[in-house]
Order: sequence, then C-alpha cells, then structure tokens
Amino acid sequence: MSKHEHVSLSVIRRLPRYYRFLGDLVKSSVSRISSRELSQRMGLTASQIRQDLNCFGGFGQQGYGYNTRSLQGEIGSILGVGGEYPAIIVGAGNIGRAIASNIDFGNMGFNLVGIFDVNPEIIGTKIKDVTIHDISSLEEFCKKKHPMIAVLTTPRDAAPDIAERLAKLGIVGFWNFSHYDLSVKYPNIAVENVHLGDSLMTLCYMIKNIGGEVTGDTNNV
Amino acid sequence: MSKHEHVSLSVIRRLPRYYRFLGDLVKSSVSRISSRELSQRMGLTASQIRQDLNCFGGFGQQGYGYNTRSLQGEIGSILGVGGEYPAIIVGAGNIGRAIASNIDFGNMGFNLVGIFDVNPEIIGTKIKDVTIHDISSLEEFCKKKHPMIAVLTTPRDAAPDIAERLAKLGIVGFWNFSHYDLSVKYPNIAVENVHLGDSLMTLCYMIKNIGGEVTGDTNNV
Repeated sequence: MSKHEHVSLSVIRRLPRYYRFLGDLVKSSVSRISSRELSQRMGLTASQIRQDLNCFGGFGQQGYGYNTRSLQGEIGSILGVGGEYPAIIVGAGNIGRAIASNIDFGNMGFNLVGIFDVNPEIIGTKIKDVTIHDISSLEEFCKKKHPMIAVLTTPRDAAPDIAERLAKLGIVGFWNFSHYDLSVKYPNIAVENVHLGDSLMTLCYMIKNIGGEVTGDTNNV
Repeated sequence: MSKHEHVSLSVIRRLPRYYRFLGDLVKSSVSRISSRELSQRMGLTASQIRQDLNCFGGFGQQGYGYNTRSLQGEIGSILGVGGEYPAIIVGAGNIGRAIASNIDFGNMGFNLVGIFDVNPEIIGTKIKDVTIHDISSLEEFCKKKHPMIAVLTTPRDAAPDIAERLAKLGIVGFWNFSHYDLSVKYPNIAVENVHLGDSLMTLCYMIKNIGGEVTGDTNNV
C-alpha cells in the first residue's frame, strides 16, 4: 500500500495536467513559477493548486514559487510515468490504430508490446514497429510477455469475452474504450473508461447554454 | 441566457453519463429506477444523484424513483442532444478518422457536414458518407454550410493557423484534440479539450498505487 492511498481520484486526475503544463514550462525554459501564475495558465485557483500539491507533501517554498523541473519530476514519479509497464492493444480498428499511432506510451509509463485483431488482412503488419497479432495467439503471447494493461478498443459486443480472457491472463488494468461496463465483473482490476461521446455532449451543452463563455478540459473538473 | 447558467461544470459533465446509463436501462426495458439503484450502477452516491438532478429542478418522485425514459429525455434536452449543430472535422489522420467513423454525431446533437485535410491522396474520398475536402476550400465551404463546431485533430503545430481561420469563420465551439491551448486566444469560443494521455497516466497511477481497487470514468470525478 502506498502513502497516496487516501488521495481522492479528482486530485489524481489533475496530476497529469500539472505534469503536462510543467513540461511545457520546462521546454520554454521557465525554471520557477508561482502558484498564482500556474493557476492562471491552468484555469484553476491558486488555492486549489496549493491544496492539490499539499496532498503529496507540498513542493513549493513560500514566496519563491515552484521549481518547474523538480515539481514535474515529483509529479511524474507520483504518477509512475517513469515505469515501463508492458501494455497491449486489443482491437486494431480506427480507435486502436489512432491510439497506437498517437499515444506516446513510453512517456506515460508504459511499453506497447503488442496489438491484437481478428482481421487476417492486417495481422502481421505493424503500427509504429509494433506487430498486429492474431487474437487467437493472445494466451501464448501473454504467457511470454506478461502485459500488465490492455487497451480495449474492440466493439462492445466482443469486449466481454476478451475481458474474461485477459483477466485470466493476469491483466491488472484496462484502458477501456469499448463502452462495455467492466468494473462490475472485475472489481480487482483497475479500469479507466473513456467515453469520447460524453465530452462531445458537454461541448453541446456549453454551446447551447453558455454561448462560449467557458472552456474545459475533460480531466479538469 | 439560460436557466442553467449557474450549474457547475462538474455537474454538467456527469449529465452525459446519466444520459448513457438511462439509455441502457430504457433499452433493457427498465422503466423505473430508484436513486439508490442508479447510484450503485453508476458508482456515485444516491445523494449525489439527487443533488445533481435537483440543479435542474429534480425529476424524481419521493418513494417512486425515476421514470427512466422521461428522465433520459429531460437530460437529453438539457444537454441539447436533440439539436443538429453542423460540425466539421479538421484533420483526417488517425484520430480524425477514428472520430468520423466511431462517434455518433447525430445522437450527440451534431451533424457532421465535412472533413478537411491537406493530404491530396485522401481529398475527395469519404468517411461514412462525409467527404474529405481540401483545407484550402475551408472558407468557401464554411460560408455555405455555416458549421458551428470544429473538431480539431490536426498536429499541434498546424492548430494555431487553423484555429484563427475557423474563429474568423464564426465557429462557436472547438472539440480540441490538438493539444494546442486555444482558450487563451479565443475566450469567447467554447473549448472542450481532450487529452487521452491524461487518462492513461491516471491508469498508471491506479495500477502503481492502488493495485486495482478503484475504477473510474474520465468524466466521472
């Protein structure tokens, strides 16, 4: 058990944003920033930022602000992004392909070791150096490579069977794009659901009700 | 100005989830549900659900629970999902393609009227009946079709120029996958940012720190 176990998930969800914003500051050679300045850039209040970072012991020095590089490093280490958890993608359709091509697994704590699909036309091909395997070889592959997380990008109907197989193979986390509700059946596996449609509906609401006076990050509320 | 203008964005962000869960219940012929049952299915507390729905006047009847179909209808109408705001996608790479293929714009309040890209090899082709146009025809197209929102799936470097052109063309909302920070420059345009990497980093944290004892929805905190 970790020292962070009682930190609320809403605080945790803001950490990747801090990590990104601080990374941008480091790249722009900004070495120090006050909580007030950081809050303005991120659309949070300064007291929110101080509260969030205090959950992990606090990193700032009264009157001097935060050292961007060391704060980014600390947050990265809390998130575990220096790790190399083996990951697989199951489903090489449009979403799976977009994720394999666009997500920088290496910088997020993961190592993408395989992609699986049922379509014989794409089996054996590669996306960014990672081979697409036949789903029938899933068990054999997992017993060798021991992936810890699976990105589930199959159609919803295919998800229950695949999830069952992956659970038996020792997967500890699902990044779930399938819209199939995994958490009820697998309470001991971490599940992060992504519903892009929810984000689009929120934009619909903003346009209809607020006329463009707000902005929001999906992970920023 | 609408009657919902003072509802917090965190409540708004839960509405699409209610809408989805209620839709599933309606499909399964569940016509009535208590806030307690609904809360168990959704991983929220019953009091949270009552509070959320009270922001919009409340829909339940003490002791009788909610009528699933009418509640879903009400929430849909609050979100504006019955509308048909014209939408375009700018960038037909992997992400743009995945969104055009997988997101059911019609059921989310939008009507996808065009896709734009710079790649001559795909200009003129279609994704699900929607034509990919040359980005050079953006102005001409927008003056005819008046899209209200743009899904921005270009590389980050291309985003500033495209956003500027779209802002001049009267776009009122960006669904922003480009990682370029639009909200500073366009405070009067609604911006919904999507950072999938943030969601993956959250999963990384869960695995590292909690060992699979939690689950979460990107829009559920």
